[in-house]
Amino acid sequence: MSQQKREEWLKLEADVLARSKGQGMLTLENLRECSGLELFQKMIAGELPRPPISDTLGFYLVQAEKGHVIFQGTPQHRHYNPIGSVHGGYHATLLDSCVACAIQTTLEAGQGYTTIELKVNYIRALTDRVGPVRAEGRVIHAGKQIGTAEGKLVDADGKLYAHATTTCLIFNV
Amino acid sequence: MSQQKREEWLKLEADVLARSKGQGMLTLENLRECSGLELFQKMIAGELPRPPISDTLGFYLVQAEKGHVIFQGTPQHRHYNPIGSVHGGYHATLLDSCVACAIQTTLEAGQGYTTIELKVNYIRALTDRVGPVRAEGRVIHAGKQIGTAEGKLVDADGKLYAHATTTCLIFNV
Amino acid sequence: MSQQKREEWLKLEADVLARSKGQGMLTLENLRECSGLELFQKMIAGELPRPPISDTLGFYLVQAEKGHVIFQGTPQHRHYNPIGSVHGGYHATLLDSCVACAIQTTLEAGQGYTTIELKVNYIRALTDRVGPVRAEGRVIHAGKQIGTAEGKLVDADGKLYAHATTTCLIFNV
Amino acid sequence: MSQQKREEWLKLEADVLARSKGQGMLTLENLRECSGLELFQKMIAGELPRPPISDTLGFYLVQAEKGHVIFQGTPQHRHYNPIGSVHGGYHATLLDSCVACAIQTTLEAGQGYTTIELKVNYIRALTDRVGPVRAEGRVIHAGKQIGTAEGKLVDADGKLYAHATTTCLIFNV
Repeated sequence: MSQQKREEWLKLEADVLARSKGQGMLTLENLRECSGLELFQKMIAGELPRPPISDTLGFYLVQAEKGHVIFQGTPQHRHYNPIGSVHGGYHATLLDSCVACAIQTTLEAGQGYTTIELKVNYIRALTDRVGPVRAEGRVIHAGKQIGTAEGKLVDADGKLYAHATTTCLIFNV
Repeated sequence: MSQQKREEWLKLEADVLARSKGQGMLTLENLRECSGLELFQKMIAGELPRPPISDTLGFYLVQAEKGHVIFQGTPQHRHYNPIGSVHGGYHATLLDSCVACAIQTTLEAGQGYTTIELKVNYIRALTDRVGPVRAEGRVIHAGKQIGTAEGKLVDADGKLYAHATTTCLIFNV
Repeated sequence: MSQQKREEWLKLEADVLARSKGQGMLTLENLRECSGLELFQKMIAGELPRPPISDTLGFYLVQAEKGHVIFQGTPQHRHYNPIGSVHGGYHATLLDSCVACAIQTTLEAGQGYTTIELKVNYIRALTDRVGPVRAEGRVIHAGKQIGTAEGKLVDADGKLYAHATTTCLIFNV
Repeated sequence: MSQQKREEWLKLEADVLARSKGQGMLTLENLRECSGLELFQKMIAGELPRPPISDTLGFYLVQAEKGHVIFQGTPQHRHYNPIGSVHGGYHATLLDSCVACAIQTTLEAGQGYTTIELKVNYIRALTDRVGPVRAEGRVIHAGKQIGTAEGKLVDADGKLYAHATTTCLIFNV
């Protein structure tokens, strides 16, 4: 059954990538006109570009709703550290993305944010035999100035590889 | 003067890369025969390969002594997030490398380690105009089972972009 | 309704305290004979003593099941910092208790643990007008050597004041 | 020699306590008229009161200069957890104090702050045989909106028991 899930996950990612508008950055106009959630929905729909880091490390935003986003990627040999497993920076990058964006889904048009801190707990080694993994972020607290969120990095069997919390500072753009 | 320092940094990185043995992983034999510090000295000397993640994100180990290591890279457009600056995963990857390896320099031949947790504080946005940056890791505590270390990500002017602490679990391989 | 909940919480705490065996420490024999969960059930039942810190800061273990524990206390003037609210050490103490003990509920007789790190996020100021608060800890990962858990500090209305994650090292006693 | 240092530390703490103005809180007027450093210098000089938490847990501000403060206390039986050593909340309380106040020493009159997050690493068990310990906080970054600092908890021999980093949000009062 998890093989089926794996294939569903890979198909969803391929679909998102297929309709992607290409690589690029959001404009200040995008940030002023769209809420955080609208930005992500447009990215997933292929109406706004994916960021350069997505292609560099091979992970993509595949789902976004209010307070909850999912990024997905597949650990590969090119992500390896010297000691035979995926570098912890890979986990940190996917988890940073999902927790920060979970907070961003709560922002209105005209609001911006910056990440203040991120803490990652590493649970299991990640290898190129694991298949696709998902970083799922959820808002814990959405305040006026400060937002916090948590994230989990799991495979298609639900096995946990790392988890994280973050704090973001919110401001007007 | 910082322009001079920038050039010195870039030259050192180019020299390390020029004599690098190519991409690869350490073998169990390497880990059993060499202390952590010896492993890094051999990598810098080009006698052991650099890990795949180094080329994927473009950062390299450039200095290692007991309890202290330095990684270096240059933030580029390909590291960008959607909102116009380098993705926090870049800082996390370089900082994770320098703090974990600082701990590894204190290990004897036959000892291994795994990162348990990493906390990163983000201070300033990093852009492709900053030039080379260094992640400098220093051991705080080197115990039998647990090691902790701290790291700073700075540019050639000494400006601070992020800092981190880590906890590693130490064991026999 | 939250006033009713507040009274229920206070009554439960008073009951636990009323049947408490007094202040003291666990013995090595206790740790060898009882699982983590049994230790807590005996504390709540008044068959094992409460620790000295409980009286010093005024907070008590009120509930324990596998992977989940609750501590309760009422913020008072004696917990205040110089700037007019409860000192962050109060939140940290209750949260440290609940996350570490959540992990301890997963340990068998003969296993011990020590806290390696704790990260606390502060969400709202706590004052002596809030009434009873609960620190609820839940295990995230229970491994052989490492356990992680998360905790939330809430009042009877469910309002969130702080949250935390921890990492513990597990060993045989 | 460390016995001599221990006695010097205890004498300094006794002197600070002897001239203390008693227990109380800072007023809004205090915060508007004094810089952070002036507030602490007045506390140490006995011109402003010590906070309630100081007496409750038995630790005191003993030194403050720009970007650097020291709190001191002596671990006692009343600080113990159930498993025979000082509760981690004690370390967290002293470390939270020293890192937050290190940041506060950089604030001008009229500026306030609140702690957003604190991460503590626990290195060694603390017992009532250790004698006086000091939590020394140092600013890492003092920005307009965000400040970060690090702290160490050490005994008179310089032995490290715990270390921490914090993030504070700075605002006008």
